Amino acid sequence: MEDLSGKIKNEIIRAKKFVFSPSKREISKPEIASMIDHTSLSPNASAKQIEKLCFEAIDNKFHSVCVNPFRVPLASKKLEGTDVKVASVIAFPFGATSPKAKAEETRWALSNGSDEFDMVMNIGALKDLEYEKVYDDIKAVVEEARGRIVKVIIETALLNFEEKVAACVISKEAGALFVKTSTGYSKGGAVAEDVALMRFVVGDELGVKAAGGIHTYEDAVEMILAGANRIGASHSLEIVGVE
Amino acid sequence: MEDLSGKIKNEIIRAKKFVFSPSKREISKPEIASMIDHTSLSPNASAKQIEKLCFEAIDNKFHSVCVNPFRVPLASKKLEGTDVKVASVIAFPFGATSPKAKAEETRWALSNGSDEFDMVMNIGALKDLEYEKVYDDIKAVVEEARGRIVKVIIETALLNFEEKVAACVISKEAGALFVKTSTGYSKGGAVAEDVALMRFVVGDELGVKAAGGIHTYEDAVEMILAGANRIGASHSLEIVGVE
Repeated sequence: MEDLSGKIKNEIIRAKKFVFSPSKREISKPEIASMIDHTSLSPNASAKQIEKLCFEAIDNKFHSVCVNPFRVPLASKKLEGTDVKVASVIAFPFGATSPKAKAEETRWALSNGSDEFDMVMNIGALKDLEYEKVYDDIKAVVEEARGRIVKVIIETALLNFEEKVAACVISKEAGALFVKTSTGYSKGGAVAEDVALMRFVVGDELGVKAAGGIHTYEDAVEMILAGANRIGASHSLEIVGVE
Repeated sequence: MEDLSGKIKNEIIRAKKFVFSPSKREISKPEIASMIDHTSLSPNASAKQIEKLCFEAIDNKFHSVCVNPFRVPLASKKLEGTDVKVASVIAFPFGATSPKAKAEETRWALSNGSDEFDMVMNIGALKDLEYEKVYDDIKAVVEEARGRIVKVIIETALLNFEEKVAACVISKEAGALFVKTSTGYSKGGAVAEDVALMRFVVGDELGVKAAGGIHTYEDAVEMILAGANRIGASHSLEIVGVE
């Protein structure tokens, strides 16, 4: 893993030259809708609430619904025959478990109809500079996802600059297809400058998902102009102007 | 599972006669210490912080340290040859995953030295009145724990009276050895009256663990007098008067 450490080191040097300069363009509400993972992760959400989430996603042409693994079979059934995907969180929201547990959780969600997987990185291992462990943990999920989209939640609110860069490099190296800012259950959510830094590090090959605290159309636009191409939100109807 | 539904129904009728009347007695700090699961579940806790947690548990004769699965191997190593147990959380703090994922997480934690398992119940399934699913979920963990203590976190803050009673009945029926009030990551923590209700329902055969918001000696005493025989806390040093 000298190679990985070396890549991280080099990327940190490169990223020190990063300057935050968001782009400017008009973004329509339908365009935003197509980027939204419409999310309900409350542990006490009822089946009825998850069904409602699915119908809202269909009506508003959201990209997906994002639910806990237990709700994947229900969401998958309700969305059958539609264009709306099912995204399942993995090891949510702490990520502090074994790669085997994350792999099993992914396998089960996949076999029950999940199309995408939003996994929480092992943040403690990153803090300990155990890059190999962080890599293996992501890799375990990527392998079980069998080519489907894995998003690695790096929880920016808990990371310093170097850790944010390292998290993105490792995610990319391990074969994830997205990096994602936040669980929405930590001390802070998506910040535009973090989104831009993440986009800077992963380049155009990977996706960047902004999530956590995105409540309005303006919030969503800010994230997209910073470099996000996916938005995680539970306030999705407000964002697209239905409520 | 008519039997289970029937038992729950009967217990709800019986529990309606429950009257909260905490006992009165002196409780020494060493007695409290022996009941404490000294807890650190922050996803960004470093290895050093977990080592410190272990040394504090040894010094103060706490019952256990309670950590995320990823930290079980480290805690187990640091506590080798001492009387302090290792408790691992399972599906924490949402509990909204598959029984298979919870089982795999338990298996891994056990094989790496965990003595006890604090699992989060499937709260959504309980809300849906899917008692069989709640039962199977607990049972999956109990079986993997191979006779070791499984504590079922019922997250009282999210439950109404009937749901609290049902959660305790199902936990007991599924072979758990403890019911536990809270994760500490929901909208409320341990409440003395809930502890007393849980004790009323499970009787003397099971343990009752109070966790969430227990910061002082007085808080801990209140929970014990209400019927708790285990305390989950991160403010443990403050509780036993070391800080």
